[in-house]
Amino acid sequence: MEQQKPVKPEELDVALSHLSRAILPKVLQVQQGIVRATHVFMFKKGLTQLMPLMLSPITDPLNHGVVDASITYAEQLWSLTKSMIFHKQLALLNPDLNSLYIVSPNVRLEFADRADTGRHLFEFTQIDFEFKDKDRFYVMEFMEELVNYVFDRLNKEIPDVLLDLRGELLPQYEKWPVYRTEKLEETLGPDYEHVQSESAPMPFWLLNHRREFYDKEDPKKPGTFLNYDMIWPEGFGEGLSGAERENEYNQIRKRMQEVGTSESTFRHYLQVAQESGLPKSAGGGFGVERMTRFICRLNDVNEVTAFSRKPFFPSLF
Amino acid sequence: MEQQKPVKPEELDVALSHLSRAILPKVLQVQQGIVRATHVFMFKKGLTQLMPLMLSPITDPLNHGVVDASITYAEQLWSLTKSMIFHKQLALLNPDLNSLYIVSPNVRLEFADRADTGRHLFEFTQIDFEFKDKDRFYVMEFMEELVNYVFDRLNKEIPDVLLDLRGELLPQYEKWPVYRTEKLEETLGPDYEHVQSESAPMPFWLLNHRREFYDKEDPKKPGTFLNYDMIWPEGFGEGLSGAERENEYNQIRKRMQEVGTSESTFRHYLQVAQESGLPKSAGGGFGVERMTRFICRLNDVNEVTAFSRKPFFPSLF
Repeated sequence: MEQQKPVKPEELDVALSHLSRAILPKVLQVQQGIVRATHVFMFKKGLTQLMPLMLSPITDPLNHGVVDASITYAEQLWSLTKSMIFHKQLALLNPDLNSLYIVSPNVRLEFADRADTGRHLFEFTQIDFEFKDKDRFYVMEFMEELVNYVFDRLNKEIPDVLLDLRGELLPQYEKWPVYRTEKLEETLGPDYEHVQSESAPMPFWLLNHRREFYDKEDPKKPGTFLNYDMIWPEGFGEGLSGAERENEYNQIRKRMQEVGTSESTFRHYLQVAQESGLPKSAGGGFGVERMTRFICRLNDVNEVTAFSRKPFFPSLF
Repeated sequence: MEQQKPVKPEELDVALSHLSRAILPKVLQVQQGIVRATHVFMFKKGLTQLMPLMLSPITDPLNHGVVDASITYAEQLWSLTKSMIFHKQLALLNPDLNSLYIVSPNVRLEFADRADTGRHLFEFTQIDFEFKDKDRFYVMEFMEELVNYVFDRLNKEIPDVLLDLRGELLPQYEKWPVYRTEKLEETLGPDYEHVQSESAPMPFWLLNHRREFYDKEDPKKPGTFLNYDMIWPEGFGEGLSGAERENEYNQIRKRMQEVGTSESTFRHYLQVAQESGLPKSAGGGFGVERMTRFICRLNDVNEVTAFSRKPFFPSLF
């Protein structure tokens, strides 16, 4: 490891100040409360937990470029997990698994353009869930219920921490508003997501994003997609991505070709789709650090970390 | 990813049969119950959760060789997490963090000699915890209480699953027996850990292992160590490793030299030990899949996985 670049003396001070911040233990208690409440909610709702995998021959191609992260082991090439999307789909092939979730670290080695957005870490934790034979309406309602459940538990378990960090207890929301990307863009211009997030009083859904091949194209309206993002209010931006999934072999291949995904990399996944059939499913995943940031009203998601993981900022530990 | 080795047709069938096993959903419910109960126990006991990191400039050197796993990003070299030991120690520098835990995937790319032990996966989940200003007696008692708590919750929450997989409900243990490695070896020979595990009616502690530099040497008896492993009974073997930690600069350097750890790789860690001082602490970590295996009395720890992670066996997903 001699090839590491030399570190300026002050970088150690920066790392130690970051982890010694007085606010950190309280922020971590909020994050811990989110995780704990989510486990309880998932159990109540009958979802089965899978443990996360860090390495796989296939991982999420993502719809924005990141630095490739892979290693070689036992004569195989292994990618670091960008999301557990394919493992969720495949695990639902077990006839007795109908819904599942994973608390999963995700590694996304962002380029320098996302260094200072306040919303990106190059590794973070995503809580991913997927339901067999369910649609977008089911998942959206599930997520709304989850947020209310988590917020209620936090209000009861750590009210003093919330009052200290947030200035007030957490709300219970009625049904979240639903918008379509193309309509919002018409009204608000290209920065519609951010503009709407700034003025929104509560989380809202944003439907129809053109992105990875596994989000289902609307068969009734080709060229539009049965996916949904949840956007936090007060300018905090995206907090969850989800979709009904493509599960039909020919349609998956068509979508892969459209977005330029390598069929060779995904040949076993495609073979399953062709020979055994992938289950019809819908799901989503939310960022734990982003939910923590929203609740604590933090300027930057990196304030949730003990060890800085801001893209392209040096880390000693 | 064209350079991946060709896969024999039957490997896909093997992967699909593995994840479609009828027993899997029940085994996963046990594992999920362990994780859920542990979160509740940690909260009751006042421990703060840190989220896991997959990448760090430093990671556990381990006391047995594994294939190196590292990547380059943003002009830095990052190792995949083999354990969160150093992050636990460093995070305790925060004056308001006195005890913490992490549910952390660990990547340990074992060599082929551990391919078929029944106890090794090349990635698994460890629940790691650490206490500032506590000693081995405190941690051992904490772990004994944790196991009884988890077992009691599982008995209440999923009794039918336990009866189905284990044939009986889980026990509540009295204080676990404590042995020293050198004494057991005298009596039972070099395979003492396995022999004792086979005949033990309950978990036991095994003190004094010569291993990584961060396990504290006994100042009263140099050449022996203030560390402890927990061994599952019925032949299931090691389930937790822990220790009081070396935290004094000169002693850490001495121990690094003895076991051959690179001071250069750990130069910032050493600098912290020298300049700020590392906290006195003790802790441990237990393998979630191994506890699941013990509870379900499974032949191989890989039966806990949906996607096989047996060292040197091919994985398609």
